[in-house]
Amino acid sequence: MKKLLFLSMLACSVALHAQPRGGKQVSPLTINKDRSVTVRYQAPATVKEVKICGDFLPFKVVSTEKWGDREEFTPIVMKKNTEGVWEYTSAALKPDLYKYWFEVDGVKTIDINNLYVMRGGRSDNANFFIINDGISANYITQQVPHGTVSARWYYSPYFKKDRRMFVYTPAEYEQMSTNRYPVLYIFHGSSEEESSWLTQGRMVEIMDNLIAQGLCEPMIVVAPNGDLDSQASYYTMNFDSSNQPHMCDVQNRSRGKENFDYYEYEHSFKDVINFIDSNYRTIPSKEGRAVCGVSMGGRNAMNVSRLQRNTFNYVGLFSPALEPEIHFPNKGYDQDIIESLRQQAKDGVKLYWIGVGQHDLQWKTNVPFRKILDEVGMKYSFNPSDGAHTYNNWRVYLTKFAPQLFK
Amino acid sequence: MKKLLFLSMLACSVALHAQPRGGKQVSPLTINKDRSVTVRYQAPATVKEVKICGDFLPFKVVSTEKWGDREEFTPIVMKKNTEGVWEYTSAALKPDLYKYWFEVDGVKTIDINNLYVMRGGRSDNANFFIINDGISANYITQQVPHGTVSARWYYSPYFKKDRRMFVYTPAEYEQMSTNRYPVLYIFHGSSEEESSWLTQGRMVEIMDNLIAQGLCEPMIVVAPNGDLDSQASYYTMNFDSSNQPHMCDVQNRSRGKENFDYYEYEHSFKDVINFIDSNYRTIPSKEGRAVCGVSMGGRNAMNVSRLQRNTFNYVGLFSPALEPEIHFPNKGYDQDIIESLRQQAKDGVKLYWIGVGQHDLQWKTNVPFRKILDEVGMKYSFNPSDGAHTYNNWRVYLTKFAPQLFK
Repeated sequence: MKKLLFLSMLACSVALHAQPRGGKQVSPLTINKDRSVTVRYQAPATVKEVKICGDFLPFKVVSTEKWGDREEFTPIVMKKNTEGVWEYTSAALKPDLYKYWFEVDGVKTIDINNLYVMRGGRSDNANFFIINDGISANYITQQVPHGTVSARWYYSPYFKKDRRMFVYTPAEYEQMSTNRYPVLYIFHGSSEEESSWLTQGRMVEIMDNLIAQGLCEPMIVVAPNGDLDSQASYYTMNFDSSNQPHMCDVQNRSRGKENFDYYEYEHSFKDVINFIDSNYRTIPSKEGRAVCGVSMGGRNAMNVSRLQRNTFNYVGLFSPALEPEIHFPNKGYDQDIIESLRQQAKDGVKLYWIGVGQHDLQWKTNVPFRKILDEVGMKYSFNPSDGAHTYNNWRVYLTKFAPQLFK
Repeated sequence: MKKLLFLSMLACSVALHAQPRGGKQVSPLTINKDRSVTVRYQAPATVKEVKICGDFLPFKVVSTEKWGDREEFTPIVMKKNTEGVWEYTSAALKPDLYKYWFEVDGVKTIDINNLYVMRGGRSDNANFFIINDGISANYITQQVPHGTVSARWYYSPYFKKDRRMFVYTPAEYEQMSTNRYPVLYIFHGSSEEESSWLTQGRMVEIMDNLIAQGLCEPMIVVAPNGDLDSQASYYTMNFDSSNQPHMCDVQNRSRGKENFDYYEYEHSFKDVINFIDSNYRTIPSKEGRAVCGVSMGGRNAMNVSRLQRNTFNYVGLFSPALEPEIHFPNKGYDQDIIESLRQQAKDGVKLYWIGVGQHDLQWKTNVPFRKILDEVGMKYSFNPSDGAHTYNNWRVYLTKFAPQLFK
């Protein structure tokens, strides 16, 4: 950890330089010594106003009846400097990965001179930067042993098609050629894809760093695609279609399929487990399996762990999307849901971990769920945090959840 | 192949729809029935002129004394339609992957509403699309068995540090658990990185499709990082540095290191081969090894195959950068270079394949090299093509080179 802290000190007063396509070189970003950041943007001279947008800006809390408190980041008008470049300097920021973009006379765009570009969901490109210190040092490739991450295709008998997942094997997996390893299954949210935990989630960097620091058991991490109609990332597959397939979420399901089984993803998930247990040196039992997920994926983790009895010993719900009237077959916590949770509690899980932000749109929806857990005697670890329904929180949750597994 | 052709017919008259961040939905791109493409761009209303740029535009051939004929794509002024969206419709295009971007009142940018964004080298983001038919059907994920691609770190004793490579294992590698497979080592060009053959090069899609069609032997393909000072892609590592490390190219070497050994990459390459032969079921002999590369990587392939005797049976030079006064230690084809090529010819290679475009900036520099090959008695396959120093050609070269290996 000392090493990470030392490395992270180097982050101070660093400028990203990039060569624009022709024209004068403008540094898109400077991280200042006080951990503020100066963002620059070279707009066409004709442009009247450039606003900076992003999750590093000051936010206001907006109260809503349905979704509780939410954080709203207000775009800020940048100032044109003497060289005609638009500039904005933030307040000092806490260590994290931040995304930003621009409104140029009302049209949203990113800065192609900052080559750090991240696709969020399916409809979201943004620039990003990292204020590197403390917890966010885990989001960066450090000088530690590195695991392998593989894009693997498997045949799903349930869906009768090939599907893709990412599989992380820890650094020692290849060296210890007979050791068996536990598996964490990690789910993305709605409108996302199997790569989301690798890009926004920084899962590979987090696992490498936690394992190297001895904070976390070496484990395999499996990131499947949670979209029932896709075989893989939309951007891998869809050069032949103008129709975005709908996501594995109830709101969208009716668009694509009639008479949809609400637990289709959960039932099909045996295919993923069977493939992993057949192709990797796993501990193929409850003791060797954890499952977690964000938002829609948090609900998937909740469902799959209660519907597949004695399959997972560790469950992590990160801001799970649990609005009963939307997210369950009969628009409520039916008795069969409650009974299966009671059974899960009786069967026993070593850890049932819930994280949710106080400005998270799922904060309110999680209250009745925890009451049910109390009623059925499920012991759980409740971890309220600051912040909202974002990977800023979910990276932290993974960093807290993973060290508690398989010990 | 029939299946691919059928699938590719679906490409006609397809529109990519994307939801801009707020505002009306503008379809960034329509591929028309006649294989022309209509590109749209929503610019700020204040903007006076939007030009479309890219490699799908008409080009003119410009003759230069030093670099021979080159292709120059002239940006074209788009037209504002009645809805205020800038539009351009191309001529009918031949099947290929094309990149494009914009000049908005002179400032270069991309369209974030087209989520197909590709980083080229280290300083180059562009939108892209595929006209899908014939050869370019190989650039797309089809319904065929898929290999696995892994980001793997290895320790290099030569550089005394960890470095990263991508390893493609063919679909049957996992099923045939005792079979051994030949290896193709594939090198990127200057200012690129270990992922370049996966993004611009479409190597994974090409190998999957060629193998599935029975055109190509199942083989492992290894894409290492050719930048001596980097451990991995700049964008994986460098959150702590404002200095772009110099590339594995002579022009840049003096910036970073004094007294540089010009063949350091080539000598260090044993580390990659040893790692692969130790960690994969390879055929660990000359009969089971091929090496190819583009531009700087073409020179690397030429050098590594003559300096490491009897290591490679197949050599592919794709537009190799072979300007003697720049690219060799003593600014010319020294006698030791010529003798090592003579020795390589005597030792024997099954295929020495050279591809270069008639408007390629390396067209002229390759003429004296082929004379040397003639002098030393090296039999080679010379494959002149249309086109220039781009992945448009190099994807085609891989599609022609790979089927000739290990047969």
